[in-house]
Amino acid sequence: ITISGVTGELISKGNHRHYMLKEIYEQPVVVAQTLKSYLQRMEDRVSLPIPDFDLGTIRRVTIVACGTSYYAGMVAKYWIEQFARVPVDIDVASEFRYRAPVMEDGGLMIVISQSGETADTLAALRYARAEGQKIAAVVNVPTSTMAREADLLLPTHAGPEIGVASTKAFTCQLAVLAAFAANLARAKGRLDAKAEKELVRHLSEAPAALNGALAYDESIEDMAHLVAGARDVLYLGRGPDYPLALEGALKLKEISYIHAEGYAAGEMKHGPIALIDDKVPVIVLAPSGPLFEKTVSNMQEVQARGGKVILISDYDGVQAAGEGCIATITMPKVHPLIAPMIYAVPVQLLAYHVAVAKGTDVDQPRNLAKSVTVE
Amino acid sequence: ITISGVTGELISKGNHRHYMLKEIYEQPVVVAQTLKSYLQRMEDRVSLPIPDFDLGTIRRVTIVACGTSYYAGMVAKYWIEQFARVPVDIDVASEFRYRAPVMEDGGLMIVISQSGETADTLAALRYARAEGQKIAAVVNVPTSTMAREADLLLPTHAGPEIGVASTKAFTCQLAVLAAFAANLARAKGRLDAKAEKELVRHLSEAPAALNGALAYDESIEDMAHLVAGARDVLYLGRGPDYPLALEGALKLKEISYIHAEGYAAGEMKHGPIALIDDKVPVIVLAPSGPLFEKTVSNMQEVQARGGKVILISDYDGVQAAGEGCIATITMPKVHPLIAPMIYAVPVQLLAYHVAVAKGTDVDQPRNLAKSVTVE
Repeated sequence: ITISGVTGELISKGNHRHYMLKEIYEQPVVVAQTLKSYLQRMEDRVSLPIPDFDLGTIRRVTIVACGTSYYAGMVAKYWIEQFARVPVDIDVASEFRYRAPVMEDGGLMIVISQSGETADTLAALRYARAEGQKIAAVVNVPTSTMAREADLLLPTHAGPEIGVASTKAFTCQLAVLAAFAANLARAKGRLDAKAEKELVRHLSEAPAALNGALAYDESIEDMAHLVAGARDVLYLGRGPDYPLALEGALKLKEISYIHAEGYAAGEMKHGPIALIDDKVPVIVLAPSGPLFEKTVSNMQEVQARGGKVILISDYDGVQAAGEGCIATITMPKVHPLIAPMIYAVPVQLLAYHVAVAKGTDVDQPRNLAKSVTVE
Repeated sequence: ITISGVTGELISKGNHRHYMLKEIYEQPVVVAQTLKSYLQRMEDRVSLPIPDFDLGTIRRVTIVACGTSYYAGMVAKYWIEQFARVPVDIDVASEFRYRAPVMEDGGLMIVISQSGETADTLAALRYARAEGQKIAAVVNVPTSTMAREADLLLPTHAGPEIGVASTKAFTCQLAVLAAFAANLARAKGRLDAKAEKELVRHLSEAPAALNGALAYDESIEDMAHLVAGARDVLYLGRGPDYPLALEGALKLKEISYIHAEGYAAGEMKHGPIALIDDKVPVIVLAPSGPLFEKTVSNMQEVQARGGKVILISDYDGVQAAGEGCIATITMPKVHPLIAPMIYAVPVQLLAYHVAVAKGTDVDQPRNLAKSVTVE
């Protein structure tokens, strides 16, 4: 795999104990850097690196990816459907490529991959190409195979990611996908100048909000022991926070070897709630907003059955529902659009500090490779 | 909730220790009973209970359900796309209803619910109705709200299901959905008389194959101790066996309180494989067929990292890949169409015997209700 633009500074750990922590801390800078290619701040406009790519004719979007990139795609599905009202299909690449999916005319496939080389995702890209789809690629390596084979290259500017567990690549993917959703919405006549200006403003606030989230590093470190002793953890969320719950669980699995599982909060009572006892910490992602009350109601069902809850919300959310939780993490209050980017930070930091507390090899977790270029 | 047609025999446990076991054993009979309404054996034709419902105009199917019913829907997605080449969207009801999904003209929503009363699923049905969709309901209670509100009632004839963990309702849902997929394929000109005859023959073989699967009850009981001591279990599958992996994990969660998680086998190396050690049994569903080799390759990656594997396959599959597994379960060799129905049996029996070995309350697991009629 070729990583372009590697400088000495970018591949050292700096003052950080691990690459992963360094990369978590780089997020405000690299997200800002990435957004720069997708926002025209002076004109209050979103834009794409290839300005003449015709988004107006796109009738359906299919997103395919693996692992953490897949969860970024799940968030994008919400954004694209909500802003552009264009329907989105999504699948993991290893499933997509073998089920011979039906692809309708006028479709755009978005592949998402840090390396741009993930074997199953590349095979999915080629299947879609053969089925007459246009291809967009959200990749961190602009010289990668996916970048070369795409009609619309949507690069992230995260810089080289050394830690095996993806962090800054994920938030940069989200930044690109949010900007893409806004562009598509405008092309579909769903975003007037005023709404576009608003969106640009919210997106522009993401780097500062990421900094605000990083300020909770120490308090998250202090609560790591609540999770480090557990063998099992559940992560719950709804809407765009459901993929964040999946991502939080994956991070814990990858680097701390704790069996964490993400669940759509509303599915708990259809089975998984049977698992709940005081040995399984439940981490709930619930920013203020339209889904807050429903998520909190699921959280209270967990508490009523003796479950120990860590609530990640904003000030209002923690005030409203923090009582009875074993810990709370207070995020800056942000627009729902950028909330998934910001909530990625506590989820990453918690996994990191739990792994450090357990003494696992954070940057080189057992059994894992950085890029999966075999099938 | 009204349960119609309850007879004394149907609500006793008979000779079985638990309702759940009785219901597992009823599957050959109730699946046969269900298929009778959907197959015209004499004419080698599939049919629907409402023969004049126009399937030819359906351009897209959206499946919405919760829990086990959702996994039946995931299997149906494969069938409908494969046989009828009609694209299928699927979502859990508690997510679907709050994301204001885009619904295109000419769409059919299929809701799946044993009780026909599941609150989130019912809300999804009403959303789709308001969006101009046709509605089909796969329910076990023909007098339920969903049954009344549907355009196309597709009843399962599983009889009353008493065990909280769904078993026979699931296989009957699969039978109905397979028949539906075949009907849709015919309406779309994708199923000629010869292929239809073949499908009818394979579906007709399901009850006998279910009996064949039940014959392994004792050997599954004998291996339950391999799982009963574990705190964590992974279930892997690909294609239509991926939802079976999710269902197997859910059954273990529900009645044995073991943290089992289902995963698409191809996603393992994107993170979860870090969990693997000799304390986490990995159960692999891999019937012979086009996905067998890929699944086995993922299984071998698990074994190479010290993972202990239980392989569920057919005779050929166990011969080819059983070596090095801590146990194997040999299913009858069946057509891929009916494999998900048949592989449900070992998955249910394993959860049952593990729960019995652990001494949990199989029919009334902690924290769970039979039907979730609140949001």
